[in-house]
Amino acid sequence: MITVALDAMGGDLGPSVTVPAAVQALSHFPELKVILIGDHSTISSQLSALGTQPSERLSIQHTEKVISDSEKPSLALRHHHGSSMGRAIDLVATHQADACVSSGNTGALMALSRFKLKLLPGVERPALISALPTSSGGRSWMLDLGANVSSDAEALFQFAVMGNCLVEQYIHRRPRVALLNIGAEEIKGNDLVKRCAEMLSETQSINFTGYIEGNQLLSDKVDVIVCDGFVGNVCLKACEGTAQLFIEKLRTSITSKSWKGWIAQKLFSSAFNALKTLNPDQYNGASLLGLRGIVIKSHGSANVEAVTNAIGEAIQQVKLQVPSRISDRLEAILLERHY
Amino acid sequence: MITVALDAMGGDLGPSVTVPAAVQALSHFPELKVILIGDHSTISSQLSALGTQPSERLSIQHTEKVISDSEKPSLALRHHHGSSMGRAIDLVATHQADACVSSGNTGALMALSRFKLKLLPGVERPALISALPTSSGGRSWMLDLGANVSSDAEALFQFAVMGNCLVEQYIHRRPRVALLNIGAEEIKGNDLVKRCAEMLSETQSINFTGYIEGNQLLSDKVDVIVCDGFVGNVCLKACEGTAQLFIEKLRTSITSKSWKGWIAQKLFSSAFNALKTLNPDQYNGASLLGLRGIVIKSHGSANVEAVTNAIGEAIQQVKLQVPSRISDRLEAILLERHY
Repeated sequence: MITVALDAMGGDLGPSVTVPAAVQALSHFPELKVILIGDHSTISSQLSALGTQPSERLSIQHTEKVISDSEKPSLALRHHHGSSMGRAIDLVATHQADACVSSGNTGALMALSRFKLKLLPGVERPALISALPTSSGGRSWMLDLGANVSSDAEALFQFAVMGNCLVEQYIHRRPRVALLNIGAEEIKGNDLVKRCAEMLSETQSINFTGYIEGNQLLSDKVDVIVCDGFVGNVCLKACEGTAQLFIEKLRTSITSKSWKGWIAQKLFSSAFNALKTLNPDQYNGASLLGLRGIVIKSHGSANVEAVTNAIGEAIQQVKLQVPSRISDRLEAILLERHY
Repeated sequence: MITVALDAMGGDLGPSVTVPAAVQALSHFPELKVILIGDHSTISSQLSALGTQPSERLSIQHTEKVISDSEKPSLALRHHHGSSMGRAIDLVATHQADACVSSGNTGALMALSRFKLKLLPGVERPALISALPTSSGGRSWMLDLGANVSSDAEALFQFAVMGNCLVEQYIHRRPRVALLNIGAEEIKGNDLVKRCAEMLSETQSINFTGYIEGNQLLSDKVDVIVCDGFVGNVCLKACEGTAQLFIEKLRTSITSKSWKGWIAQKLFSSAFNALKTLNPDQYNGASLLGLRGIVIKSHGSANVEAVTNAIGEAIQQVKLQVPSRISDRLEAILLERHY
């Protein structure tokens, strides 16, 4: 069995999303156990409303506090005792859970995870990675999505190594690794990116394919896209904002005329399904790499489907033993670079 | 009359796009004169193919060379003599043209413009600005889109002042100015953005509304979005890539079934028109701010419509006397800050 600790209070909608997601995940994944962490009575009511109750596979751990979205990471570090997020990570640190999932405050989640789980040997900074949908219906992965607000070339290089290691497990071949830059030509870009490109070019065991530009993020050109956390965060959100705007425009235009909407759905279901693959909720489940434990970050605005996907991501990483693989790979590559 | 020098050789498709765009712009804007700069015989053939020829409002200046997209800015600075882009900027520097438009190599265009036109007094770095479509059908403006690969807080502040000054002319009210950041809360973000936010908060004459995140780039929340050139470039391209992917998915799904396509066009013309406002070609015409002259950068992949829009942007900036307004405004704000 795989045990996932779920911060039931995290996210914009808290237990009204996380509890149904836990129930749905339990039916999807027979090997799953969920520990719901948060206010016992709210969680119990949500379970009752869904016609279910705690069981061998679904337990509740009561906590009093919630770390708010506006809490500074430094304050969260001091006041995490008795919080749903803090407890979820504690369960991983003490091996009572195999992974934790939270839709709460990203800064606090990263600070607490780093403090409680510690970095893997050789890792300087953790990184947030997530899958993006690609134009052909596949996936690529991008990191760092905001675990750090600034990075040096060595950190970017480590992100590439960690991303390479994770994605290799998913796609079962050598991932094509690229650096996000403002131009595809070698002459462009800032010093940070150029220095990291040199380091990656010298590393035989990574299939570094060069630079890609922002308009190719959703293409099928590469498998791992590496960038600093500030750039990754704003870029991913820019893609999401654009996708949401498109979906909204289509929806408004169609639902405003009901018989047209009916015809539209009959005629264009394939187009709508294609657009759905670009919906942020479909690819929820970013994860923090570089820690001695598995931490999955769900969007604050994630819906039931999205939190269920995040739990699925946690299960997959547990099966793949991601942290120990990253540690082994990083050690090998650091040896390759230094000798 | 307003004279625009058009680098006819710039862009992926060169004269086959720029020449029809010039002809179209001349019919749209009765006050316009265009000087087409580039290979005389290619331009002449294009004109003949369109059933037109040089006139009082449309002249050709022959040049032998084209600055390639892969040419380093430093090399372009040494070898620009006799190039179409170099000549276009020269005409502005010598007041033979009021503005120039190029779809060529951005790095070279910025380096040559800065070298030939010089910075306005008080400006430390030029910035590339462009309009984005917003969800309500309006526009917002974003800078820097890649004139610089790294910036300090003072440079970001100057971008805000320049963007504010331009956009004020367009929207006829005080623009809402925001900084692009990885979180809307004050606690988030890197030091660069935080320092610039302090400077903007202290500046009475700018309506600084705080931070916005990447998913709000196309919202109606703000009028001017300020960020460093690396971030702006990848973000804008990320939006474009997402928009193009959506348009492509819809198009493929519809044209693959021709009778459905016919019905779709009849039923959903309003939806398609709404989506068209998110098409990058519709909002082409970035401009370089901070120079003693008007330089409009069109996309390398811009089509005829887009290059025509870029010429329209040049005309508008000439009428608004953008460089001298920026200079006056910057001087006033620097005085406000220092006394």
